Amino acid sequence: MSLLVVGSVAYDGIETPFGKTDKILGGSATYISLASSYFTEDINLVGVVGKDFADEDIELLKSKNVDLEGLQFDERGNTFFWKGRYHHDLNMRDTLDTQLNVFEHFDPIIPDGYKNADFVALGNIEPSLQQKVLEQVTDPRLVVMDTMNFWIEGTPDALKQTLKGVDLLVINDSEARELADEPNLITAAEKVRAMGPDSLIIKKGEHGALLFTGDEIFSAPAYPVIDIFDPTGAGDTFMGGLLGWLAYTNDLTPHNMRRAVIMGSVMASFCVEKFGPERLKDLKEQEIYNRYKEFRRLSVIPEIE
Amino acid sequence: MSLLVVGSVAYDGIETPFGKTDKILGGSATYISLASSYFTEDINLVGVVGKDFADEDIELLKSKNVDLEGLQFDERGNTFFWKGRYHHDLNMRDTLDTQLNVFEHFDPIIPDGYKNADFVALGNIEPSLQQKVLEQVTDPRLVVMDTMNFWIEGTPDALKQTLKGVDLLVINDSEARELADEPNLITAAEKVRAMGPDSLIIKKGEHGALLFTGDEIFSAPAYPVIDIFDPTGAGDTFMGGLLGWLAYTNDLTPHNMRRAVIMGSVMASFCVEKFGPERLKDLKEQEIYNRYKEFRRLSVIPEIE
Repeated sequence: MSLLVVGSVAYDGIETPFGKTDKILGGSATYISLASSYFTEDINLVGVVGKDFADEDIELLKSKNVDLEGLQFDERGNTFFWKGRYHHDLNMRDTLDTQLNVFEHFDPIIPDGYKNADFVALGNIEPSLQQKVLEQVTDPRLVVMDTMNFWIEGTPDALKQTLKGVDLLVINDSEARELADEPNLITAAEKVRAMGPDSLIIKKGEHGALLFTGDEIFSAPAYPVIDIFDPTGAGDTFMGGLLGWLAYTNDLTPHNMRRAVIMGSVMASFCVEKFGPERLKDLKEQEIYNRYKEFRRLSVIPEIE
Repeated sequence: MSLLVVGSVAYDGIETPFGKTDKILGGSATYISLASSYFTEDINLVGVVGKDFADEDIELLKSKNVDLEGLQFDERGNTFFWKGRYHHDLNMRDTLDTQLNVFEHFDPIIPDGYKNADFVALGNIEPSLQQKVLEQVTDPRLVVMDTMNFWIEGTPDALKQTLKGVDLLVINDSEARELADEPNLITAAEKVRAMGPDSLIIKKGEHGALLFTGDEIFSAPAYPVIDIFDPTGAGDTFMGGLLGWLAYTNDLTPHNMRRAVIMGSVMASFCVEKFGPERLKDLKEQEIYNRYKEFRRLSVIPEIE
């Protein structure tokens, strides 16, 4: 099945307690595309980059079968740049610099060949742009969307409008609480689903994730990573693993949605092992399936005889 | 197998957004005993109460087969009293009043008939008192201990001494991080186990629990409770369900420890449904086993064919 990915393509400057990078490839559309490329070959990316965008990054995406017809090259400026520093507690980070650059005028134009995509991934960008994407695609099987506190607080009306066209929302726990204005996560989930998305995934970082679909709740464990090197992109990678698996299997039953959540978790657990998307460049299929099995072992509750 | 429970027996005054109580039965030893009583009949309680302790509370404990030979009646004062108010976000509470009363001079004297207990539950009291208990018992099969930030900060040396004699420590995530002085929970767990306890359970409230035993990590989900009425005693109830199950099965394999963690979670999920220990008074066996099955359904990760 074909997957349309719309989001940011960026350069990141990252400092963690373990090291530092200058400008490395980043952005939600990048992580989603790279992670999903391990499961499906029909990936179509829509984003914008500037005149500084490196050939080797183009080559990386192409080598993963990511179609770049929808990637706009804007020669008037540089690529979106973000610089941040993580604390000793990697759950906390400070933004040191944000340069929107060409991303400031991003207009997500969907090439005709992408419009009949089966699966649509709306990375975390302005809700009105996500809405624009939805107006261009024709009857996708599943629309998956990410958002963040910035939009929940800054553009709540546009966000709520966009949510009506979304099938599966993927957000973290603080975002779910804020969006629903409700501290109890289970109640918050009900309220968010009433806003439009049939299904909801709440990411809880080191505590795993919750999937709400149909009448079911699935509690996915987190992988016990001792040496988290760099958390950048973990959430987008989760979405990529999830969508890659769904596009590969084309099965949206609750049963298979559980597998997709774990596949997202698997890919995110790899992502944090190295700087940026480094670990997503050369994963082996066997590594992925082995880690899936580790997730299963981690959460087995034995029957009572 | 026999279970020795040492801890506080108290009265609590509780305010939640949903209601208010005056003085109702509470205390770690109370919750542990009541929760374990659903699995094992040989429960021996050591604690202290004052002249205000009500006959009906004695009768309740007796009706659950809790032996009270070790319960000291101190006529010089009243029973330990705690009063607290929970916020709209039930993860937060303010202590409004603490009256130690007779608990201030509590000396945990273990009756001779209790000393050969198979399982020992050390509720959250001063580490030096927990140590005193360990000096009186003879070769228990499993010593399980709870503690809190107050002792981690206030009496770290005594705490670390006591930990050396403990087989399984049950604490929450912020306590684990503080005790180990380490933000990564998995690394923190390694450091805490190096202090003495072979096994460790980290309770994560609404995020479930992690069990570290042998070379295994088990990630237990939280039950998706929409209507948490009163969180008081949930942690102690967890410990009671856990120990009750272990005393009943007398099986300390990692496999059965997983069941015990879920049984603890099951009992805690009932506890929060009503004020104080109310819900622990009349549970049905079938309710308990049904909820155990719900926990299993919640966390099943399907195989990949």
